[in-house]
Amino acid sequence: MNVKLYHGGGAKETRDLIDKIFRKHLQNELLSKEDATILNAPQKIAITTDSFTVNPIFFKGGDIGKLSIAGAMNDLSVMGAKPLYMSMGFILEEGLSFEELEKIVISIKNELNKNNVKLVAADTKVVPKGMVDKIYINSSAIGEVIKEGISSSNLKEGDVLIVSGVIGNHGAVIMAQRHGFDIDIDSDCASLWEMIKPILKEGIEIHAMRDLTRGGLATTLHEFSQNSNVEILIEEETIPIEEPVLGLCEVLGIEPYSLACEGRILIATTPKDANKVLDILKSHKLGEKASIIGKVLKSSRPNVYLKTSYGHIRYLEEAPGEMLPRIC
Amino acid sequence: MNVKLYHGGGAKETRDLIDKIFRKHLQNELLSKEDATILNAPQKIAITTDSFTVNPIFFKGGDIGKLSIAGAMNDLSVMGAKPLYMSMGFILEEGLSFEELEKIVISIKNELNKNNVKLVAADTKVVPKGMVDKIYINSSAIGEVIKEGISSSNLKEGDVLIVSGVIGNHGAVIMAQRHGFDIDIDSDCASLWEMIKPILKEGIEIHAMRDLTRGGLATTLHEFSQNSNVEILIEEETIPIEEPVLGLCEVLGIEPYSLACEGRILIATTPKDANKVLDILKSHKLGEKASIIGKVLKSSRPNVYLKTSYGHIRYLEEAPGEMLPRIC
Repeated sequence: MNVKLYHGGGAKETRDLIDKIFRKHLQNELLSKEDATILNAPQKIAITTDSFTVNPIFFKGGDIGKLSIAGAMNDLSVMGAKPLYMSMGFILEEGLSFEELEKIVISIKNELNKNNVKLVAADTKVVPKGMVDKIYINSSAIGEVIKEGISSSNLKEGDVLIVSGVIGNHGAVIMAQRHGFDIDIDSDCASLWEMIKPILKEGIEIHAMRDLTRGGLATTLHEFSQNSNVEILIEEETIPIEEPVLGLCEVLGIEPYSLACEGRILIATTPKDANKVLDILKSHKLGEKASIIGKVLKSSRPNVYLKTSYGHIRYLEEAPGEMLPRIC
Repeated sequence: MNVKLYHGGGAKETRDLIDKIFRKHLQNELLSKEDATILNAPQKIAITTDSFTVNPIFFKGGDIGKLSIAGAMNDLSVMGAKPLYMSMGFILEEGLSFEELEKIVISIKNELNKNNVKLVAADTKVVPKGMVDKIYINSSAIGEVIKEGISSSNLKEGDVLIVSGVIGNHGAVIMAQRHGFDIDIDSDCASLWEMIKPILKEGIEIHAMRDLTRGGLATTLHEFSQNSNVEILIEEETIPIEEPVLGLCEVLGIEPYSLACEGRILIATTPKDANKVLDILKSHKLGEKASIIGKVLKSSRPNVYLKTSYGHIRYLEEAPGEMLPRIC
């Protein structure tokens, strides 16, 4: 069986598709059959939205379903908010197999359950063959704000920069699969709330926190630098990168700093709290390889510098243009 | 100028596109530059999501931008919730002209402003040419619940059914433009909160309310009938339809009852309140042609009947399969 145009008509066939694949796995007590769902909300909420167009839709370590949950969850988590509710919009290409669709929906279910997050609204459209590439998903998410004041414009002179693990695995896996290379690593795609939660407790000062998605570490560093108008220096030797990622970068002549991650964060904290944050990260499976990679030099003008392993200091470029479309 | 792949890279070029087209028109005090936006929420919220893939993206009486706001607003309004906040995810095709994109963004701005609704989160992706058709938009919306208990499973024996205006104009306009026919009407695409708000006041019993989108009046009647397990009878002569819509239906051999609207609702209310509701609707510009079109016969088994203008009673079919993909 595969998805037909008539599955998008809004009538009986649409209800069949929704019952047999979507509701079968995703039904919960909050998801209504009406045009909107009514919920109790915490007083202070965080809200985010993200569209996922990743190609290929199945990759080592994940698929577009898992990614569409983890990506939205992480955008809330790095703003100090506990993920609670999700809405999802699916755009399906005529001809997509039910088998592939169900695999994706099961990934969504597993990732939602792992995070105890409820899908509360959903929408499905079918477009004719060639009008979308297999499946695109939009995820919007609502969370309860636990800690306020985390912002990319809050970096201060002296702040310490910490990355939560090895970088670039997601981008490297996607790139390798598209080029038909074997690569002996998985995408880092993961929901990070459980790792981030203990960092938000009272007494720890977090100035900025971001997940390293499109544009990777380099782009996030530039956003921190520009939004806070500060100069940043990072040290190459302290940045955790796995051999297969370095190898692929050498073959393709690219830098790992611009490769996307989907389960890594960059944190700016005070020198006083840096080791506390590092210890908390390292105590979680997803933060085992966390590392202090640099600091904020001064608050004069935005610049990002890299001290190479040879001891030279050079300007760190953002990813120039679109290195790799459809990474997420 | 047109959209290039590098506008989706997440780095400088993405920020340029966002600043020059999106923020230029849509920036407001709530829309943050972070991964998520923090907001005060009412205690009881309604949430909805919808993806828009309409073809053509510009049509008589609207465009995909206006539609993506009105559609999401209406899904909240018919659940008794006042629209407050929106998130939007844009998927752009490489090559889309800046001019077309800006026209769409201006439509979005106008429709948001008209409803005093704030865009609070947004995301933009660019995919290679041929991987999406020009532009798809996902809209998610949050509203404050004003009246609870409105549900398609709440219809009772004796309930009166009211439609808020002429049906099928949106579907007819889209169909005509795709077939290259001239048609002398506009789409009914409109945000309905202002028309619906006064119906929600205390003392008026609204059992069910839906906007008539995909699948049109026929599909909504079937949903009411099935979800409440009731038999419904509507009368052809009382259903407002404009001449050009009837004409197009005759030429194409289709029924107007399955044509989509994007600014019409169906209400089920008590016989006691039916005239009050009708008067309130008629006092608003968008409800001038509101009409009582039928009633709930009994609560035995789900069925929808149409009494034709010749006095015959026949079963009213739902739209069979996908009559017209990408209507919204």
